[in-house]
Amino acid sequence: MTLAQALDELVTANRILAREGVVDSFGHVSIRHPERPDRYVLSRARAPECIEIDDLMEFALDSTPIAAAGSKPYTERFIHGAVYDARPEVKAVVHHHSPSVIPFGITGVSLSPVMHMCAGIGARVPTWDSRARFGDTNLLVTNAAMASDLAGALGARPAILMRGHGCVVAGASLREVVFNSIYLQLNADLQMKATALGDVTFLTDGEIAAVLRTRGSFTYERAWEFWCRRAGRPYDARAIDG
Amino acid sequence: MTLAQALDELVTANRILAREGVVDSFGHVSIRHPERPDRYVLSRARAPECIEIDDLMEFALDSTPIAAAGSKPYTERFIHGAVYDARPEVKAVVHHHSPSVIPFGITGVSLSPVMHMCAGIGARVPTWDSRARFGDTNLLVTNAAMASDLAGALGARPAILMRGHGCVVAGASLREVVFNSIYLQLNADLQMKATALGDVTFLTDGEIAAVLRTRGSFTYERAWEFWCRRAGRPYDARAIDG
Amino acid sequence: MTLAQALDELVTANRILAREGVVDSFGHVSIRHPERPDRYVLSRARAPECIEIDDLMEFALDSTPIAAAGSKPYTERFIHGAVYDARPEVKAVVHHHSPSVIPFGITGVSLSPVMHMCAGIGARVPTWDSRARFGDTNLLVTNAAMASDLAGALGARPAILMRGHGCVVAGASLREVVFNSIYLQLNADLQMKATALGDVTFLTDGEIAAVLRTRGSFTYERAWEFWCRRAGRPYDARAIDG
Amino acid sequence: MTLAQALDELVTANRILAREGVVDSFGHVSIRHPERPDRYVLSRARAPECIEIDDLMEFALDSTPIAAAGSKPYTERFIHGAVYDARPEVKAVVHHHSPSVIPFGITGVSLSPVMHMCAGIGARVPTWDSRARFGDTNLLVTNAAMASDLAGALGARPAILMRGHGCVVAGASLREVVFNSIYLQLNADLQMKATALGDVTFLTDGEIAAVLRTRGSFTYERAWEFWCRRAGRPYDARAIDG
Repeated sequence: MTLAQALDELVTANRILAREGVVDSFGHVSIRHPERPDRYVLSRARAPECIEIDDLMEFALDSTPIAAAGSKPYTERFIHGAVYDARPEVKAVVHHHSPSVIPFGITGVSLSPVMHMCAGIGARVPTWDSRARFGDTNLLVTNAAMASDLAGALGARPAILMRGHGCVVAGASLREVVFNSIYLQLNADLQMKATALGDVTFLTDGEIAAVLRTRGSFTYERAWEFWCRRAGRPYDARAIDG
Repeated sequence: MTLAQALDELVTANRILAREGVVDSFGHVSIRHPERPDRYVLSRARAPECIEIDDLMEFALDSTPIAAAGSKPYTERFIHGAVYDARPEVKAVVHHHSPSVIPFGITGVSLSPVMHMCAGIGARVPTWDSRARFGDTNLLVTNAAMASDLAGALGARPAILMRGHGCVVAGASLREVVFNSIYLQLNADLQMKATALGDVTFLTDGEIAAVLRTRGSFTYERAWEFWCRRAGRPYDARAIDG
Repeated sequence: MTLAQALDELVTANRILAREGVVDSFGHVSIRHPERPDRYVLSRARAPECIEIDDLMEFALDSTPIAAAGSKPYTERFIHGAVYDARPEVKAVVHHHSPSVIPFGITGVSLSPVMHMCAGIGARVPTWDSRARFGDTNLLVTNAAMASDLAGALGARPAILMRGHGCVVAGASLREVVFNSIYLQLNADLQMKATALGDVTFLTDGEIAAVLRTRGSFTYERAWEFWCRRAGRPYDARAIDG
Repeated sequence: MTLAQALDELVTANRILAREGVVDSFGHVSIRHPERPDRYVLSRARAPECIEIDDLMEFALDSTPIAAAGSKPYTERFIHGAVYDARPEVKAVVHHHSPSVIPFGITGVSLSPVMHMCAGIGARVPTWDSRARFGDTNLLVTNAAMASDLAGALGARPAILMRGHGCVVAGASLREVVFNSIYLQLNADLQMKATALGDVTFLTDGEIAAVLRTRGSFTYERAWEFWCRRAGRPYDARAIDG
């Protein structure tokens, strides 16, 4: 994939997350720079539904913008930098406030996979509370210290909740983090509905492992084509063979 | 109905199920081949919203593709083959993951008709759990053994839930299985809402039998015209008189 | 208003109820014939979203079609005929299956106004159960005996629920029954949400009476213009001054 | 900002609130006149989705229309006048009936911020009940006495609920009241979902203060651009630099 294709797909990822209701005016998605692993690419501060290719900016892993003078970046870009810095295998990161996910972070109820498609969220999604170490703040992760603490709590997991704020999803590709963001939202919906009905049977650890072991890129591709169509974005068919 | 008409309606069925939120990127619908009852027709592995007529493939009842080399089929096509093999009267099958239906499969709460339009889901929809016989798997029904076990649990019923996965709906026509898939989803929604309000009065067995005994093809036709319109698909008016 | 205008507005009413999710493929709305009070006008059996002016048919109050040979009528048209026959002041009737309303009919939980806009549903909406007098049926009101029993239970009220089936809304104008159908649906949603939160304070009888005493046609007009716009139907501005 | 721009933005605010489901046929939004602080601007009585610039009218703070003869104003305009009269710093007011907010007003459950974006609704949103002082009314605030009582209960707060009716949101700019109206609705949704899951952790007073202290106009701008796009309204990019 060329850099131009990667940037185009990052725009698409923004539009998909908006179309699927995972982000509203806020929330953001980044990729590690495909040619410079010590950089990441993220939009300027703008609602994901509105983002165009010219809005994309490059950042060092300490979240300093590469261009000396430029557009206003997201104040919470430190989340992305800290995760890329801590985990070399991570190629894409989403930070979002899905209204299905928030209720878990503020009640301390554990979020775990209830169906096969949601296995990628991790066996148990932990919750990070900024107040534990940083006290009364505006809850935004706007500096390296908070971002590093959050990345430490995330550890090697695919996702973590943030109390009173949202969540972070990290993964090996842009398609993977978009997929797991959308199915994190679905799992939260399903788990809330099921909790109201009776005792919930979650996937076993063995089932989660089996899903992840057998999941090919084809699964992400099928969903990506569908979400491109819904978001009114072109779908690059080459990716299916890739 | 000609074969060409049947295939066109299968594309329409895919689009309707997507439009009504019964399927997302996953889930599939098939018909028994109208001229060759030892075959069934199912799309290649693609999101239902995206399916075109050229995506349709033929399979033997053991789920081997008829064309030696072709597109990638759904790995779970075995569900369809096993049901057609076990039940000669079945002419169409849907497998879906409706987010309204999943909560019942994972809590073991029995799903039963609460209104006349939902009588076609059967008096009591059972739940099949792949773990009972196959242990920790990725939950996908990707071989004849699992599919046969599932079809056995379905028996002569119109629908069955799959724990942590979704459900199967089988019936005498494509319109019938689409109708019962959509009203299975609605019944699940209604039953969840009602459970939160108070003690639920379900249809009696006598009422369910009376609905099914008096339901004509006209009921399916009226809904089909509406769903075609919503899905942006042409509606074939001849069917009303058929 | 001319007959042509009245018929055009009946088409609009069908489209509005579909757009607002009150009806799906089923449910219907009628008007008393503006020039012949011993007749009513109702579409042939078709989904409300699809109805055109040529689908409208005239019926006597015993629900016999006026034209000897014609299109297939709704089998449940008897509901309309029985209400017009019992209540000369009624000029329009809706029968619908709103998914918000069904949970009340099947749990026996009383539905009452929780906000001023919903006062028109009546102080307490009763539930009619076809099984009480007619035993195990397909729940459809397809004859004069059932319809008369239902109309008797409705009495002078604006609305009644039907267990496992839906509801009937009757009123002095088409705009009024569409308004009360949509706000019956909203009240049901609000009451379900509030019930899950705590003890609900309903409007007092005095408040309900005050709302109805002071409600002018202007309230219906403002909503009608909005719903026409959402349904893609022209809004006849003359009505505002009428 | 010129007066023409301010009026154009008021039309946009109406459309945004309709698009986001905060208002339906009812509810209204006003601004204090940008050149005449003793006046406010509000549409004639019309559904917010339908409002055009020619519908806007000027009122004195006692809610008398400035033009002797004109269009029919909202009967509840007194809400706006009373708030502008009591609070000179208030530049915009919304009155709405969001279906997420009503359940709190009718159960007496306290609504408080559960996430950072919702901090602007105030630490605890009180409920005003018209019945306490005015007895059985149609619940509409159609005179100065009721409006003054409501404004008194609102005090210096950004929002107040009205039992069985809706709520009022007041603030320092049009963007702020639209933002807080939409996030009041979201907070209500989140709090209802969380209440069903377990014990809810609300933002602390220190966190709420920190959010408000650090919130810049840029936050409102990012959301405004997104909502303009969704509502099909032009977004005035100058505002970003303003």
